[in-house]
Amino acid sequence: MRAVDVIMKKRDGGPLSREEIRFFVDGVTSGTLPDYQASALLMAILLRGMTAEETAWLTDAMVHSGVRVDLGDIPGVKVDKHSTGGVGDKTSLILAPLAAACGVPVPMMSGRGLGHTGGTLDKLEAIPGFRVNLSLEEMKTALARVGCAMIGQTAQIAPADKKLYALRDVTGTVESIPLISASIMSKKIAEGIDALVLDVKTGRGAFMKTEADSRKLAESLVSIGNASGVKTEAVITAMDAPLGNAVGNALEVIECVEVLKGGGPSDLIEVSVELTARMLVLGQVARDRVDADRQARLAITSGAGLERFRQIIEMQGGDPRIVDDYTRLPQAEERHVVVAERAGYVNRVDAELVGRASVALGAGRDRVEDPVDPAVGIVVKAKPGDEVRAGDAVLEMHYRTRPKLEAALALAARAVTIHDTRPATGRLIVAEVQ
Amino acid sequence: MRAVDVIMKKRDGGPLSREEIRFFVDGVTSGTLPDYQASALLMAILLRGMTAEETAWLTDAMVHSGVRVDLGDIPGVKVDKHSTGGVGDKTSLILAPLAAACGVPVPMMSGRGLGHTGGTLDKLEAIPGFRVNLSLEEMKTALARVGCAMIGQTAQIAPADKKLYALRDVTGTVESIPLISASIMSKKIAEGIDALVLDVKTGRGAFMKTEADSRKLAESLVSIGNASGVKTEAVITAMDAPLGNAVGNALEVIECVEVLKGGGPSDLIEVSVELTARMLVLGQVARDRVDADRQARLAITSGAGLERFRQIIEMQGGDPRIVDDYTRLPQAEERHVVVAERAGYVNRVDAELVGRASVALGAGRDRVEDPVDPAVGIVVKAKPGDEVRAGDAVLEMHYRTRPKLEAALALAARAVTIHDTRPATGRLIVAEVQ
Repeated sequence: MRAVDVIMKKRDGGPLSREEIRFFVDGVTSGTLPDYQASALLMAILLRGMTAEETAWLTDAMVHSGVRVDLGDIPGVKVDKHSTGGVGDKTSLILAPLAAACGVPVPMMSGRGLGHTGGTLDKLEAIPGFRVNLSLEEMKTALARVGCAMIGQTAQIAPADKKLYALRDVTGTVESIPLISASIMSKKIAEGIDALVLDVKTGRGAFMKTEADSRKLAESLVSIGNASGVKTEAVITAMDAPLGNAVGNALEVIECVEVLKGGGPSDLIEVSVELTARMLVLGQVARDRVDADRQARLAITSGAGLERFRQIIEMQGGDPRIVDDYTRLPQAEERHVVVAERAGYVNRVDAELVGRASVALGAGRDRVEDPVDPAVGIVVKAKPGDEVRAGDAVLEMHYRTRPKLEAALALAARAVTIHDTRPATGRLIVAEVQ
Repeated sequence: MRAVDVIMKKRDGGPLSREEIRFFVDGVTSGTLPDYQASALLMAILLRGMTAEETAWLTDAMVHSGVRVDLGDIPGVKVDKHSTGGVGDKTSLILAPLAAACGVPVPMMSGRGLGHTGGTLDKLEAIPGFRVNLSLEEMKTALARVGCAMIGQTAQIAPADKKLYALRDVTGTVESIPLISASIMSKKIAEGIDALVLDVKTGRGAFMKTEADSRKLAESLVSIGNASGVKTEAVITAMDAPLGNAVGNALEVIECVEVLKGGGPSDLIEVSVELTARMLVLGQVARDRVDADRQARLAITSGAGLERFRQIIEMQGGDPRIVDDYTRLPQAEERHVVVAERAGYVNRVDAELVGRASVALGAGRDRVEDPVDPAVGIVVKAKPGDEVRAGDAVLEMHYRTRPKLEAALALAARAVTIHDTRPATGRLIVAEVQ
């Protein structure tokens, strides 16, 4: 098989065979396929598309580039959640302990933040001592002992994805539903789970800006998961404004602990409970959605979720005392408050701009290899629909240095818009795809 | 400027700016742009297209990747011809001496054969001693002394094209009219000519299979040439059957000498005179097309063209005695005749199959670095429209080894088809584009 023939076939709009897709993925993994041929094919795939069948084959080839973890000796239905990425999107730190507390084993492999969206691993690492790089054996031990492990992708999991993603990032070939689907699902299928809840974000702060695109992605992901024996369902949730109030790693950890203590912002609670409840049904510990919703909320009010979060932190080497003493988390000493310039109703808090401002403060990264500062970030003080007076705080910036604050303010200044009339409130849970 | 932004702009169908195109070409030339980014952009260009303006900028940037030769100290209007490539397409060896004999300086830079089509350099090198790798200074001397130089592309001419072509060849990005146009025209503009006649081939044996595509390419080429100050016109000519009878380097040299002696096949004469006459008008040595046609034919009957060919050969180190003694050219000792299996009229002599059969004999190459055998090739004994009896010769294979003959016969067997009725004869000169 010649790579150039495979490229030309896709260039001309033809579907690739299973063997051709396997040849491509194996070549990328082993390094025998030069990057310049891989990138030409990626661009052809982006512009010509892939059928559902091709996408499933691509996912399967990527799973087989590494190991598919066997969690058969852990009892119960193993369930994970994956979000396509948002700003202030911290539900994993809430739903993982809640689902585990309700008896669902949660083997969660997460990523780091990139661009304006955050990542679960960066948030967990804001907790002093927390180790996300467990081996597969350590992961199984954690699952057996505390019903949950929250780790990074190991080198054995879909190595083709790591190489392909690095290439896509620099060749303008990220925004392709088949490529995104295969990237997400190959890692999830390889981690050995039985079921998966997907949180597909939609809106200004999301990767997919329209509901139609989000639905297409959700349908693609669900179809691949189910075809590979992972029972998969997706919820499409709004990502126009940040989820919750906190954006920034340590600030988000605090907000999650607040939710687990029965407090926290209502939008974050709503999405977290929705996702937890779906995990409980898929994990077969709840009879139905009503029962699942009740169990999830009970795990908050009883304190079982908070207790489980303490155990997870301790199991992975972190300091569980942060739950009771937030000063044990990294904190930025400097604060700057952005105020409303006029009275009215907050019309928009632009998630992407807040996310980019947070990156400018040092909370996120533009390049994979950049470090992040766990202490800095932004707290949203006025959410869409809130009434404000001129001079009221709308954003609170937690910063380290003046130049970074200036860079962040240049973005944040445009993030909050105020109108005379109260905006129509959109749905937070937009749709479900099963 | 970030390469990934330029790629994404073209990916999304946007036109690139002059600066973005310059950034791309300069990056390829200097090696600062990684191949994987260049190939992703090439695929996006192939699938999204380029405007006439973008194509002109791309050509200009490729010209400026090297030197634009100054032939100002050679008197007269310098005219070249370029063909998009065909099988048996040997007109350069006829029209260059004819035009030079009529007083038009012809600084001709040609290429080598690749795939099923032949190349002028390989044909010239079939002449013992003939040097195609003249320096620019030697080229000017030859032009001044014999009014013609027939050489290969030097390293100073459009080096970006060499790198881009190598990358396009392995990434399925050859078949793009903007990329083909910029590749052809950058080299022609850089060689310092004042005018150019293009022979855009169309049909089964050509790169462009349909008249519509050939016309698009011709229009693109003519528009770029004229915009760059090179007076350019194009003729679209048929390439369904081989042009003339001989296919293979030494065999084609002999056929060209025959035409210069007043013999040779009528189709080859027709195209050669058409192209020569256009060169004479553009070169301002003929009043009009009628005068030009007369002069071109006179240069044959007077023997002036043949004499000029002798001088060109001698000037470039070749043995001019080949003109009178064909045994001084390399010859394959073995002959195999393919005969008509039935009586009827030759309906088709498939140029691509004959070309590929000739490559199989060793006359051409599939990879740029492969050597060619100047002696081998195929002589077409029955052309479309000819009446044949069963057992009549249709193809004569000049071969070296049995295995190569077998490989060639497997292709040649399907090349000639015979029907009961005489086929409609298509036009040889299909259209002109000015």
